[in-house]
Amino acid sequence: MNTRSNLRTRGTGAVVRAAAAPSASVSRGARGARSCHFAAAGSKRGVARQTVRDQRLAPTKAIATEETTGVTLNNEGKGKRVLVVGGDGYCGWASALHLSARGYEVAIMDNLARRNWDQQLGYDSLTPIASIHKRVAKWKELTGRDITLYLGDICDFEFLAEAWKQFEPEHVVHFGEQRSAPYSMLDRERAVYTQVNNVSGTINILYAMKEFTPDCHMVKLGTMGEYGTPNIDIEEGYLDITHNGRTDTLPYPKQGNSFYHLSKIHDSTNMIFCAKTWGLKVTDLNQGVVYGVKTPETSLDETLINRLDYDSIFGTALNRFVIQAAVGHPITVYGKGGQTRGFLDIRDTVRCIQLAIDNPAEQGKMRVMNQFTELFSVNELASLVKDAGAKLDLDVQVTSVPNPRIEAEEHYYNAKNSKLKDLGLEPHLLGDAILDSLLNVAVEYKDRCDRQLILPANAWGSSGVSRHFVGEKAKSI
Amino acid sequence: MNTRSNLRTRGTGAVVRAAAAPSASVSRGARGARSCHFAAAGSKRGVARQTVRDQRLAPTKAIATEETTGVTLNNEGKGKRVLVVGGDGYCGWASALHLSARGYEVAIMDNLARRNWDQQLGYDSLTPIASIHKRVAKWKELTGRDITLYLGDICDFEFLAEAWKQFEPEHVVHFGEQRSAPYSMLDRERAVYTQVNNVSGTINILYAMKEFTPDCHMVKLGTMGEYGTPNIDIEEGYLDITHNGRTDTLPYPKQGNSFYHLSKIHDSTNMIFCAKTWGLKVTDLNQGVVYGVKTPETSLDETLINRLDYDSIFGTALNRFVIQAAVGHPITVYGKGGQTRGFLDIRDTVRCIQLAIDNPAEQGKMRVMNQFTELFSVNELASLVKDAGAKLDLDVQVTSVPNPRIEAEEHYYNAKNSKLKDLGLEPHLLGDAILDSLLNVAVEYKDRCDRQLILPANAWGSSGVSRHFVGEKAKSI
Repeated sequence: MNTRSNLRTRGTGAVVRAAAAPSASVSRGARGARSCHFAAAGSKRGVARQTVRDQRLAPTKAIATEETTGVTLNNEGKGKRVLVVGGDGYCGWASALHLSARGYEVAIMDNLARRNWDQQLGYDSLTPIASIHKRVAKWKELTGRDITLYLGDICDFEFLAEAWKQFEPEHVVHFGEQRSAPYSMLDRERAVYTQVNNVSGTINILYAMKEFTPDCHMVKLGTMGEYGTPNIDIEEGYLDITHNGRTDTLPYPKQGNSFYHLSKIHDSTNMIFCAKTWGLKVTDLNQGVVYGVKTPETSLDETLINRLDYDSIFGTALNRFVIQAAVGHPITVYGKGGQTRGFLDIRDTVRCIQLAIDNPAEQGKMRVMNQFTELFSVNELASLVKDAGAKLDLDVQVTSVPNPRIEAEEHYYNAKNSKLKDLGLEPHLLGDAILDSLLNVAVEYKDRCDRQLILPANAWGSSGVSRHFVGEKAKSI
Repeated sequence: MNTRSNLRTRGTGAVVRAAAAPSASVSRGARGARSCHFAAAGSKRGVARQTVRDQRLAPTKAIATEETTGVTLNNEGKGKRVLVVGGDGYCGWASALHLSARGYEVAIMDNLARRNWDQQLGYDSLTPIASIHKRVAKWKELTGRDITLYLGDICDFEFLAEAWKQFEPEHVVHFGEQRSAPYSMLDRERAVYTQVNNVSGTINILYAMKEFTPDCHMVKLGTMGEYGTPNIDIEEGYLDITHNGRTDTLPYPKQGNSFYHLSKIHDSTNMIFCAKTWGLKVTDLNQGVVYGVKTPETSLDETLINRLDYDSIFGTALNRFVIQAAVGHPITVYGKGGQTRGFLDIRDTVRCIQLAIDNPAEQGKMRVMNQFTELFSVNELASLVKDAGAKLDLDVQVTSVPNPRIEAEEHYYNAKNSKLKDLGLEPHLLGDAILDSLLNVAVEYKDRCDRQLILPANAWGSSGVSRHFVGEKAKSI
């Protein structure tokens, strides 16, 4: 309470949480907002990481070391009510804290389904994540900032409406979907669930906006996977097409490659219609594959730590490779490894969300921005992780396993991503710093890794009508 | 039973159902299949309609008149098991009888939801339709041909799987969706229902095909409305795109204009994926607006009569206009009336279905065909109906009402439709014959018309989270 009191009444000043060697970080508050800073000591490899110290923070359990990083608390988003749907998830949690630290009035809406899927499948985050209740309480304790919780299902409109009318969001950031392609391909039941859950939830939000808060701006998380791998350049949402001497700007043709990716296409198609028909403000962020686990805020205390998935269902390419390297498992490249995708650091995810909020879409036409910073092939990623591991004396092997997906393994890929940079995004590019940081986290928690969960548990071709039960998760493909 | 015995054992020969002036019709059996014919006498205005007499048949209650038309029974489709999902509906019922008459082994799967929506809204077909049980029994009585009934919901996979494994379809014709744009825009609950029902049912069928009958061919009814009204020519499903010096053939960019149209886009997007990933045979028929009510088979007996919708939710442009003309209600043009769409006669719908079955899609790439025969603007249709009415001494007025839809009322529209013609479709073009026939049916049943149901009951802009109850159906827009 003292902490809160300090923050609320003084609005600035360093509140030191670290027991040793605290230092003030560089203030990153925009627009001259008054800022206060959290500082904590860093890790053993802090010296080499000084160049990025103001964006990184070690968990408090590692405070008694030499690296120093900081969290900026300011009020640049003051007065903006932001509802983060799916705020207990990987991107959602980091985004909620990023916004709360900057003074936005944040509420998290979540049905905690993500945790339940893990439990049903026998999976777990490599990092030990606290309950959402403990997370929010710890955040309040450390920063004095409140995050309101609305725990329920957006597919239940009675719940959604009641919470919506209570919070009256000015922006809704919608991460609240089943987001795993392999999960959606486990079996018929999960395929239908993924599409019904994602599409219904998004329609419900669109109706809530229309009816209760028509000026509310939606920031919806889509995926770069909506575009597939066309043989032409990928633009940001729309394409100018000349055909038989006539021209129009049309939605970019989408080709999803799993029931999950398809569900995001459906969402986008619905959102274009609702924005146009009802004059809503909608931003569709086609996000690439996110890597990393730490943001300054989630690093403040181990209770705030973000999830880190390495299993074959929820683990995504780079994060999974790093953990494989850390635990001494060969890096599993699916097939030829020529699959190229857009990637971004989770610290850029949270910044993109803020940029979208601070520069909302106009009414009536859905805005689309591609949210990634760099393109890599799977083979390139494996090579980067192998090299980074070598610097830490890890003997990293790379192996090709049969591709569970039915997809092009060698293809043209050139996707545009200028819009978010035009709004001010300064990318954290993939380099030694983040790979090293991620490897260290993976090594720190490697005893929690269940190696049986690393290999693909299901193949696109074997998705069937029989339910995929827990005991089958490690079956060969 | 005698009738069936005759047909099954002899395979040919005229089985006369009419009490007066029967005559053999022209056999339209393809490929030299042996044919037998039903003949029945026609209507009072038969003389002027002689040119189309082999495609038309009056209901039996009008048999004691002079016009003569006929039904062809043959075995050209013998041995092909066809499951017609939604076979109790407007297009489905006509298609099921068309196929059964031609020797295909037909089963109808339907949850009778369409009848329930009418009951909930207080609507009814202008024509008095019999129960599906009586329909099928009458068909059997008249032709000796069996149609198997599977009454249940394709969203209930346990039901679907059991029926599927019993019937083992070689072709599934999928009409089984909520097919009204205005219904999908009544309220949030119906919007979600439409998308969940349509998308889930189609996914279930795709899984049933994959698991139980991988060689089965799906003929899925989409809609021309998936394309919207782009400023470029509308191709059949795919578009060759050159962009920044590179070229690819991509799914045609879709822009649906209601939650219903969007649901069909979602289906198409899912089907492309499943055809590619699982090697399924899939045909997507983007159908235009269907008009007419009679096919030779549904005209055999009043028990077989097809439904004819004129209300603002389920009635489509031309059919609704004709009924308005018949009952002395001004033809209601929505807005400026420049909206142009593709149209086709229901006798072409059933023929297109047969052509798609007889020329199935190849495995692995979804085939798309645009299923319409002519383009008309709403104003052109109103003018045609006005002129046709004048010939029958009907004083037809045309009025513009506020457009309940939010759509372009003047736009470029040029859609291609060559693929079905290449397969052999000989269109029934819209002319005096069909307008006259339709007007006569409308006049015959005009006492069943509830004029309160003609004006738009809901507007796209007022679709909300409060449920649209029955009592509200006639509220002004």
